[in-house]
This record gives sequence, C-alpha cells and structure tokens, in this order.
Amino acid sequence: MAERLRYGMVGGSLNAFIGEVHRKAIAFDPRAELVAGCFSNIESENVETGEAYHIATDRVYADYMEMAKAEAARPDGIDFVCITTPNFLHYAIAKEFLMAGIHVVCEKPLCFKVEEAEELAALAAEKDLVFGVTYSYTGNTMTKVAKEMIAAGKIGKIVSVNAEYVQDWLLDELDEAHSGSDKNLSVWRTDPEFSGISNCVGDIGTHMENMIHYLTGMKIKRLAATTNSYGNALDLNANMLIEYDNGVNGAYWCSQVAAGHMNGLKVCIYGTEGSLEWEQHFPDYLRYTPRNGAPQTLSRGCGYIKEAAGACGRLPSGHPEGLYVAFANVYRNIISTILKKKAGQTPTAEELDFPTVIDGLNGVKFVHAVIESAKAGTKWVEL
Amino acid sequence: MAERLRYGMVGGSLNAFIGEVHRKAIAFDPRAELVAGCFSNIESENVETGEAYHIATDRVYADYMEMAKAEAARPDGIDFVCITTPNFLHYAIAKEFLMAGIHVVCEKPLCFKVEEAEELAALAAEKDLVFGVTYSYTGNTMTKVAKEMIAAGKIGKIVSVNAEYVQDWLLDELDEAHSGSDKNLSVWRTDPEFSGISNCVGDIGTHMENMIHYLTGMKIKRLAATTNSYGNALDLNANMLIEYDNGVNGAYWCSQVAAGHMNGLKVCIYGTEGSLEWEQHFPDYLRYTPRNGAPQTLSRGCGYIKEAAGACGRLPSGHPEGLYVAFANVYRNIISTILKKKAGQTPTAEELDFPTVIDGLNGVKFVHAVIESAKAGTKWVEL
Amino acid sequence: MAERLRYGMVGGSLNAFIGEVHRKAIAFDPRAELVAGCFSNIESENVETGEAYHIATDRVYADYMEMAKAEAARPDGIDFVCITTPNFLHYAIAKEFLMAGIHVVCEKPLCFKVEEAEELAALAAEKDLVFGVTYSYTGNTMTKVAKEMIAAGKIGKIVSVNAEYVQDWLLDELDEAHSGSDKNLSVWRTDPEFSGISNCVGDIGTHMENMIHYLTGMKIKRLAATTNSYGNALDLNANMLIEYDNGVNGAYWCSQVAAGHMNGLKVCIYGTEGSLEWEQHFPDYLRYTPRNGAPQTLSRGCGYIKEAAGACGRLPSGHPEGLYVAFANVYRNIISTILKKKAGQTPTAEELDFPTVIDGLNGVKFVHAVIESAKAGTKWVEL
Amino acid sequence: MAERLRYGMVGGSLNAFIGEVHRKAIAFDPRAELVAGCFSNIESENVETGEAYHIATDRVYADYMEMAKAEAARPDGIDFVCITTPNFLHYAIAKEFLMAGIHVVCEKPLCFKVEEAEELAALAAEKDLVFGVTYSYTGNTMTKVAKEMIAAGKIGKIVSVNAEYVQDWLLDELDEAHSGSDKNLSVWRTDPEFSGISNCVGDIGTHMENMIHYLTGMKIKRLAATTNSYGNALDLNANMLIEYDNGVNGAYWCSQVAAGHMNGLKVCIYGTEGSLEWEQHFPDYLRYTPRNGAPQTLSRGCGYIKEAAGACGRLPSGHPEGLYVAFANVYRNIISTILKKKAGQTPTAEELDFPTVIDGLNGVKFVHAVIESAKAGTKWVEL
Repeated sequence: MAERLRYGMVGGSLNAFIGEVHRKAIAFDPRAELVAGCFSNIESENVETGEAYHIATDRVYADYMEMAKAEAARPDGIDFVCITTPNFLHYAIAKEFLMAGIHVVCEKPLCFKVEEAEELAALAAEKDLVFGVTYSYTGNTMTKVAKEMIAAGKIGKIVSVNAEYVQDWLLDELDEAHSGSDKNLSVWRTDPEFSGISNCVGDIGTHMENMIHYLTGMKIKRLAATTNSYGNALDLNANMLIEYDNGVNGAYWCSQVAAGHMNGLKVCIYGTEGSLEWEQHFPDYLRYTPRNGAPQTLSRGCGYIKEAAGACGRLPSGHPEGLYVAFANVYRNIISTILKKKAGQTPTAEELDFPTVIDGLNGVKFVHAVIESAKAGTKWVEL
Repeated sequence: MAERLRYGMVGGSLNAFIGEVHRKAIAFDPRAELVAGCFSNIESENVETGEAYHIATDRVYADYMEMAKAEAARPDGIDFVCITTPNFLHYAIAKEFLMAGIHVVCEKPLCFKVEEAEELAALAAEKDLVFGVTYSYTGNTMTKVAKEMIAAGKIGKIVSVNAEYVQDWLLDELDEAHSGSDKNLSVWRTDPEFSGISNCVGDIGTHMENMIHYLTGMKIKRLAATTNSYGNALDLNANMLIEYDNGVNGAYWCSQVAAGHMNGLKVCIYGTEGSLEWEQHFPDYLRYTPRNGAPQTLSRGCGYIKEAAGACGRLPSGHPEGLYVAFANVYRNIISTILKKKAGQTPTAEELDFPTVIDGLNGVKFVHAVIESAKAGTKWVEL
Repeated sequence: MAERLRYGMVGGSLNAFIGEVHRKAIAFDPRAELVAGCFSNIESENVETGEAYHIATDRVYADYMEMAKAEAARPDGIDFVCITTPNFLHYAIAKEFLMAGIHVVCEKPLCFKVEEAEELAALAAEKDLVFGVTYSYTGNTMTKVAKEMIAAGKIGKIVSVNAEYVQDWLLDELDEAHSGSDKNLSVWRTDPEFSGISNCVGDIGTHMENMIHYLTGMKIKRLAATTNSYGNALDLNANMLIEYDNGVNGAYWCSQVAAGHMNGLKVCIYGTEGSLEWEQHFPDYLRYTPRNGAPQTLSRGCGYIKEAAGACGRLPSGHPEGLYVAFANVYRNIISTILKKKAGQTPTAEELDFPTVIDGLNGVKFVHAVIESAKAGTKWVEL
Repeated sequence: MAERLRYGMVGGSLNAFIGEVHRKAIAFDPRAELVAGCFSNIESENVETGEAYHIATDRVYADYMEMAKAEAARPDGIDFVCITTPNFLHYAIAKEFLMAGIHVVCEKPLCFKVEEAEELAALAAEKDLVFGVTYSYTGNTMTKVAKEMIAAGKIGKIVSVNAEYVQDWLLDELDEAHSGSDKNLSVWRTDPEFSGISNCVGDIGTHMENMIHYLTGMKIKRLAATTNSYGNALDLNANMLIEYDNGVNGAYWCSQVAAGHMNGLKVCIYGTEGSLEWEQHFPDYLRYTPRNGAPQTLSRGCGYIKEAAGACGRLPSGHPEGLYVAFANVYRNIISTILKKKAGQTPTAEELDFPTVIDGLNGVKFVHAVIESAKAGTKWVEL
C-alpha cells in the first residue's frame, strides 16, 4: 500500500468557504486523509463537521491546544495541520503546532506582526518542520509555465511590472447611510481587531507581492503608497509604486470597491524580449508576446508548452481546471515534501515548489510597508 | 454519522483521464467512498490502482462479471458502479450491473446501437435502478441558470439555435503520409470496431444534442447532415441542419480537425425577447442579451443571479470552478437520489436534475440519424 | 497636377446611410471629386444634397436617365457613377450608365434576377467598362492578409469552413402584435417588391459567400438550406450546408433576429496546417493558429505581417481603421484601375483587387440557390 | 450654397502620418476645404503635397511666417490653420497665426514650456480666436456617452481611477548594442532638443490626464511619479500616483516598451454606484457595470443608449468607426464653432465640446509635474 499522510484541521467547519477548499484540494490526490480537527469554537458545528467527515469522536477537539498535545502524543497522530481560522488566530495556532513538532499549512495572511512572522519562521527552521502558506494562485499550471519562461530568458531582462487585484464585494461599505452595527456582515474585515492594520492590502494585496516574486524572483526594495478607507477603519483601496532590488519599477493596485471586478488578480511582466500576462479569472491561459511578434494565447495542456511546469496540469487542454486544482497543486508538493522528510529523503526542487513561512513573512512586511508609507504621506519605505 | 454510499469502478486505472475525473468529482462531497474496482484488464495496473486507493485486495476484481456478482452478494456491497471503460464495453458492463441490482453511472456515449440503449433503459426502469450518464457539462452552474432563465421566459419564444463543439487534437490524422499502424495513438477513435459507426459525432457531437435539449426542453424532430472522414474510416467533422419538434430550426457543427480549438462546446439560443450564449472554455460565465438591451456577462456566484440554480455553485464569484465541479454537481444529484431511494424516499426535482439512460438513448439515436443522413446524401432523417 | 477623376452619384441624398459612406470613402484619397448627381427622387432632398456638396446646379439631375445622357455628352463628364439607391433600382440604373459608356460602381446586391446580373456582366465586358460591386468587407487589410496567407499555404489544404453573419435589428418583426402597416420602418426589407426573393440571405448572406470565395478562391458547387420567415413574406434567418467545387464542406448561418449581434460577419477557415478566423466587429485583427501552435492575434500595422497586403493599411497598429477605410480601400483600387484605363495602361493585379460585376452575379446565383433549396425541402441545389 | 471654411496646414506633407489623418478627418464633412499650406521644409515635398491636393501654387508657402502674413491679407484667406509639424515647432507657429488673427488647431503636445502654453492661451483669449488642440480620443462617441453617464450620476460618486496608455514600438531602444547614431529612426523622440523634457509622458501620458478630466471633470491636485529612461536621454516608461482636487486617488501608467501593447489607452472610472471602462483599441464599446449588476458591453449605435452623445456616431451599430471618425468629430465641433463665430452667433455647448488651448496648457503642466516629481525622488508635486 502507498503511504498516506494523516492530517487535521483547525477551522474549516462545514460551509466555511476556504476550509472546504483545502479539504477538497487535499482529496485530489489519495495521499492524505483527514483524521482530526478542531473545526469551530461553536460546539455543534464542530461535532457536525467531524461527523460529516467520519472523524473519530475522540479526535474532534474543542480546543486547538489540546489537539496539538493529543495528536503529538498519539502513535498515529496527524502529520500536518491545516489552519483555516479567521486570520487573527493564525499566529497562536501555528506556534502551538510547531511547538508540538507537527508540520503546518496555514492560510494567508500568515499573521499581523512582522515579529510574529519572524518568530514562526525561526521556529519552523529550528524544528526542521515544513510550513506551507497557501498563496494558492502559484499552484496554477500557467503561473509555473510563466515562471519557467522568465527564468529561461523568454522575455529577456525585465523592464516593467504591473499588477492589480481588484474586487467589488465591499462596495456596500461605501454607503454613507451605513455605519457601525448597521454595516453588512463583512464588517469584521475592516475592524482592526480582527484584520490587523490592513484590510484590502492584507487580504488581497499580498497576492500581488507574492506572485510577482514567485514569477520573477525579484524582491521589493522599497515602495510608496496611497490607501483609501472612505470613512472606514481600514483600507478598501490602495495604489503602490514599487522599486525592486534590481532597480526595476512597477505599480500595484488593489481594491475591494471596484465595481465590475470579482476576483481580478492580474500580473503583467514586461521584458526586453517580450511580455507575459496572466489573469486569475482565466487561469488556464497565459498571454505571451515575443518582441516584434503577435500576442499568443498559451493554453494549459497544449503540446507546444515545452516547459516542465506544463506537465503539472491534470486535464487535457480546453477542460478548465479552476481554483481547486491550484490549491491541489500546492498541496501535492507540500505532501510530497512531508513524505520525503518522513522517509528521511531530500525533496526535489519541484517538490519544494510551494509557498512557505518565508513567503508569509514577506507578505507581512509588505503590508506594513504599504500602510506605513500611506500614513507618512506616500514616502518611500524600505522593506 | 451521515450515511455514506459505497461505490465501485469498472475502468479508471491510474492515469486514465476520465476515470480519475470521476473519482475526484465524487470525492468533492464526503458522501460516497470507493471500495471496489475492476480498474484495468492489465493485472498490474488493476492492482496498482487498488493499492493507490487503499481498496481491500479481495475487492479488486480481475473480471467485471465476477465483481457484479460478488458485490451484489456482500452485505456491504457497492451501492453504485461507475463505468469509465472504452466506449465499446459500456453496454455489456452496464447490463451486468443492472442485472445484479446495482445502480449505474456510465460515461457517454452510452453504447453504439439504438436497440442496446433501449434495452438498458428498459432494464433500469424494470429494476427501478438509477442510471446516470455523465453528460457532465450540464453540471455547470451557468448552464442550469440558462435553463431556468429560458423556462422563465427571459428570452421569450425560441426562434433559432446554434451550437458547435470543435477540437483540433486529431489534426494529425489528416496527414497523408500517415496510414494504418503509422497513425498516432488516437487511431482507435477512428476504428469502427472500437468507436461504432461514428467518431466525432459520437464522441462530442452528442454533447450539443444533449445540452440544447437540457437547456430548452426541445427535442430534435429531424436532421440533415454532411460528415467528413478525410480518408479515415470514421468521421472527423460534421455539419447538421436541425429541425426541432416545435418547428424551430438550428445548426450544429462538430469537428476534431479545427485548428485552434481545444474543447470548444458553445451553445447559443435565440428568442423573441433575448438570447443566451454559453461556452465551455469559460463555464462560469453566460452571455445574456435582453432584446433591445446591451449584452451582459452573467457570472456564477454573483448576487444578481436570482435563479435557484445559481446556488449550486461552490465558490464565490471570480474563483473559477472548472470541469471537476461540473462532474461533482452531476454526482451530487445522483448520490442524493440514490440516498433517497435507499431511505425509501422520493427524490426532489432538483435531486433528479442529472442526465440519465434516456439522455444516453437520445444520444445514440442522434448519432445514428446523423450518419444515416450523411450516407443518404443529406436527406432529412427523423429521430 | 495629379489627375483627378470626376464622379456622379445616383442615390445617396444627405443622411442616407450608405451613400454617405461611399462619398467619405472616395474622399479618403484626393483622386476623385463629386461633380454630378441624381441623389433623390424627392426634389428638395436632391437639391439640398447638391448644395451641400457644392455641385453645379445644372449637374443636379431630377432623372438618372437624363443624367447618364448629359454626362456622357459633356467633355468634362463623369468618369464613373456610384449607385446607392434602394436595391430594386440597381439593375435599370447600372444598365443605363453602361449603355452611356460610363464606368459603374454599384452597391450589393447587384440585382434580383440571375438573367439581369448576367446581362450587366455581359454589357460591362462588351463595353470594356469597369464595374465594381461594393462587397466592402474585402477592403479590410486583414482580410487581404488572410487571403495571401491562404494562397501561400500557411494553413495548408482547407478542410472545413464556417461562416456566419448575424444581426438583431429586425427582432421587432417577430412581434405577433405587429402586422401589415403596423410594422416598423424596416418593413420594405421583407416586402418582395422591394427586396426580391430574399431579405436576409440577399442583404447579408451574400457577404459570406463573397468573403469565403475572396479568401480561398473556392467556389460553391451546391448547397442545401433552411430559411425562416416567422410569418413574414421573406426570410429573416437561414442555415446552409455548403459543398465547394473541391469537395470541401462548410456551413453558413445568417440572421437578422439573433439578439445580441449587431453586424457579426465572421469567417473561419480551417486547414491541415492551421486556421484563420476574422470577425468584422474587430476588423484590424486576425486570429491565426498554426497547427500544434498557440493562437496568435495578428494585428494590422505590425511589422511581423510580411504579406504584401499588410501594407494597404493606412494607420499604425492599434489605431482602429473601421468601415470607412474598408470602403476607401475598395475605391482606391477601382479608381487606380479607371485611371490606368483612361491612360491606356494595364492595371496591376493589386489594382484589380476589388469585387466586380462577376462577384455580384455570383451573389445573385447564391441567393437564388438558397431560396430554391429551402422551398424544395432542403434539397441540394447546384450553383 | 452652404458656407464652407477655408483652411491651411503647416506640416502634413504626403505620407506624414498625423497630417494625413487631419486632412481625412476634415474631409468627413464637406464644410472646410484645404486651400493653402506650408507642408514641409523640404521644397520638393512641399510642392508635391500642394499638387496632390490641387492647391494653387501661390498658396504653397516655403515659410510659415510668410504664409500667416499672406493668408491674413487675402480676402479669401484661410479661416483656420492646422499645425501638424514636429512638436518642438508648435509654439512658434501657433503664435504666428494667432498674431495674424487666424484660428488655430494644433496637435498635442501644445508645446514644451508652461509659460509658452500660458502665453498661447492668453493670446487666443485676447484675440478671441478658436484654438483647438487635438486630443482626438475625446471625439469617440463612447467617451462622450461615458462623460454624460458620469455627469448623470450613473456610477455615483467617484472613488477610484485607473488609467494606462501602453505601447511597445520603442522596445528596440532598450538594446544595449544600440547607441547614439546607431539607434533607430525614433531616436528624436528621446532627444530633449526635439521632445522637450519628456518623451513618453509628453507623447502619450497626457492623453490619460486629458481623458480622465474630460470624462469626470476632476482636476489633478498633485501627483507622485517614477520614470524610467533605461539609459536613454528621456523617459520611456512612467508610473504615477494621482490625487484629484476632490480627494479621490488614482494611478496612471504609460509606457512605450510594454511588449504586446500597440496603442493601449485604457481608462477606468469606479464609483459608488458602478463603473465605466473604455479602451481605445475597441472604441465603439464601453464596459458599464452597475453596482450589484452584471457587466454590460454598451455599443455605439444601439438604441439603448439614451444619452445625447450617442447620436454623434455616424454609422449603425456593429460598423466600426475608428480613429478617423474620432478626429472628424473633434473637427466637426471646431468647424461649427468657427462658423458660428464668423456669423456672429454663439456656439452651443455641444459645438464647444472639443479640446482647447486650456487642455493643452493642462497637459504641459502635467508633464512638468511628472518629470519634477520623478527627479525629486517621487515627492508629491502640485499642479
């Protein structure tokens, strides 16, 4: 029989959006099974979720600290934990499981404070534990193809970068009639207690930072920003000028009040020999324009994609893969890496291709720099 | 604990494209688990697949007839079988499991002969067994939204229909240099022994017939067709004029040699009050134009979709769902229906919203009519 | 001073849509000036148009027969006449000017009867006069690029053709409440007296026939059709199966009741080595997919277009040209040809690249074949 | 006879791109005729252009100063001059004709220095002369529709603005192998003597500033920018953070080295009640998303466009208009205004809808602010 990992969840009760995505994504490959959880702090939801997933009742925990301790003690304890609670709880939970010697996969944003992120990164290194952070869009095959094309010099030396991540689901927050408890359910998003120092930049802006870094390897040296909260406690819109460590400039825009945009992460990389443009709404495609040539629409699954990354798709061309597959691809590599570690083997570079606690830390730094710059009148802030 | 169905597979060894899709789709909801299989007639592949899915060794069968018998005899035998073998085996396998009293889900095309299809339909009815046929595109949320909009009169009385399903993956078959064993791996597709009387119309053309019927309720009264085999044994391209039972005309085109098209199923319905257009490559969207209004791009997950069907999506708007979800939605209803039947309850209309053996039968009739018309010089053939 | 042609118009009073397009298109190049006209049978409109264009009052004619005679007699008489009257008048007017020895440019459809079209073609040949018919879409640079690419073998041997021309501006004609004089202003379009035997096929369907012939050189051998008039006197929708003289099959669809389509002429040509797709709404672009390659969006004005035709654009890439330029390109060649003839020189092949009375004749034959086939139960009709 | 204006040109010899566009645009309406010119400082080109346009030889001038004087003195002298020379000559020429009492239409950028622009504005005011500056994109019907929709409150209160103008035709300038005289023909574009203080921002960036102001009425209060020259004398790429006078933020990006973009002016305006997005490549369309509704593709020429501006189109829907029509619409209003002035009448608000010397002045200020900010380390610069 093939080895199968055991995993647990903190957060992710039935009907919770992102927890369910994690479960389905893990189920794409029959190499990990859900055996424990602390799915909700509401007891009935916790029990109900455990039942739906046929979890043994003694492994449905009311408390995540108890769970970390109990699972660490069992001979058949979980290999990794998947944390999909509200963001403000990530830090404490991740720390607890690391301390217990259990591998961690955590939703982004990793946490709210740079020092906390650094502590988690140090702890994972010290304990030699895998720590994945689900910047899931990097799991899309075509972003991997883009990364390889850039590395192979297909677009030459990078000269300009443009990224945006725009949504419109918080438009109602702009209603002047609304205020305080009057606001819609998303209000916690703009409450500093639950969202830290940023709403929009923290929630979606970090995906731009992460994706550009993933694709190009460039790191942000400094940035200058404006943010807009429109009378709310936290930002709903932000514009950023970026300077990377190699001197290249770029610009980012994120918004949750841009009518007509649902989940529009779009990254565009321009080089001396061509360009690449990718949009999350149509993840199976990549627009590639070689210098002096016509724009081409590269498609996942087609034979003309020679990059190794092209092989990580799971369906023939023209059969849309979507978000679950992106998540599943991130998990495929995380699980392969944990399996290798359990077997005392060294994971390959391909298996290590997933976002880690270091990416999480970079995200937290990015958010802090944006907010600091905006508060200081758009001055340049070094990362 | 929530009830969970047990299912088995015939076909679907590791790396088989469509079998794997079925397994992942079923795994989307934790209501059915794979416990038995006859995955391949190659022993090593059969065993290997069983191991990968942690199937008990005595339930990995070398022979599907043995499997039907053994599973029917067990108290914990499978509730349904999922048939994803090559098409020419569908009929015999489906019949065997029906005879054993086991619910069936079968890939399309159901089978090659009209009489066989009628026999399977009659058998399912007689035994009161569920028989799903995976015309999976009807599982997409936006096709369900379109169906409801049409039923609600949003586009008025239908006046014209246009559908196409175009691919290009068999373009190499046109090479005159190629012949016989020289041909690429897809050659069985154009071999009558394995593909029946039609390749292209049978493989993809039937999706047009099924989808238009699903969306509008209209049935084809008669059709007139041309087919092209370009020197091969079976068709690679076909054009059809359609007349529906209510007098409306339409046209279908299917091809596997149309360069630049990957998996382009597109259905367009025009009415006195507006139109709806849906394309499989971008399944989360639906183009709706009200008469005298501007075209709108409706998107799965958005609040403005008031149709009940809108709720069957699983992700927020802008998060692409893709093919697995379409399949998973078909299975969700099939599994709900089987659960209701096991509990002696009547499934709801919503739960019964999946393609059945009757759709499979209609598909076989359609294929025969197309081929007959083309052979008879494009004469009208009644269905 | 460069030689400048003199031309006159029959039809095309101020505010008449297509006459105005002709005038602006001719004005694109300063090689022909409007000096005479019989713009309308309503005297005030005729006079007013003459004044707006600073035409000498004695050359604003109340009667086109008088105009042909007078202009032929003048030493500075018009070199060519441009006919943009309602369609049912084309034949008589064109004949009159040919008889007078004046070159003719006529809007399509050329006329209603095959014999009339043949008579005009014979007369032009006999008199050695230029006779242009403004199938204007062939004036678009990218259609010329496509034509050259096909001729150069870029898409190999053609295997399939698909064309559509769909509009929705006659949707109101489907209202059952409307009837007779109740109908909107477009009613003459569906009146046989003014539109001949066909409305939709004659008005827009012929553009498909002409464009495919222009691009590929293939001629239709026979066709089988359905038409729909929805209770009106003439067709508003039609579907056609096509067989070309080289055995290739194709399908055409035209409609004026397809909600959401404005002026959607789209032609798609599939070959053994690739495909080309062009859509009138975005005339500056051409979708080209080489076999086994990614789809490319070729754009007018870009350096990678090596075809000679690429040079016939007038603006840099990314600066949209639109319909006037298409017309202007048709006229550029007609005017060059007439200038060469006046100078006793032979026009080049490039200068002769415009639709002629022969194309007009083919269009009339096509319309008759479609209507005959539909009336005879979709039987194949040879052209 | 209808009154017809007489006009002359400085610049615009045969084959000069933009001068030819001006001539064709003016020819769209038979209300102005070209009668004089100083088309080139190369004598043969000047003469040749005069001949092609049948200009009287004594009105083809070798010197623009002589032309201003002579035309001002003639009883049938030109009503307006159209200046389409290289940019660095605009100021002196415009001043000369204003001094001579002749109306002026000048290409953008108006000139290089703020003081010069202010001088021209003052002079035009003092002499009561019309001074149009051809920010031609505001002539597109759909930008006028957008302007009216915003004014009518269709998208509510503006909350965010995003604009870009990206091209790739100067990509070759990035070649490190190229230097000095080695560079391609576009080198003057990056030479301060001929291009002033900016290349890219001055050439195309100003269109963003102008268009957003045209659409919304908002004026830029201050901006912060980065520019990139990649080793050349002037900028080829720039990113800007914008703050408008009403406190709204936005971001602009312009580039001439963004592979895959031809002439991509795109403006996006987001409000509390919806959004509008317009892209120059497809000028006949406007994407409108009402808050909580589906995105609609509004199209020029369709009956559902109730705005008065909708009427300024010249072709039915689906018949592409393109750049010439945009220019022609700008000229239509300029010519109407001059005609009114000549007749001692007051132009209507609609007739005055064209960009003037004030817009030109604002453009010059914008360019200076961007360059100043970039040089000062991205500090905020007030306009």
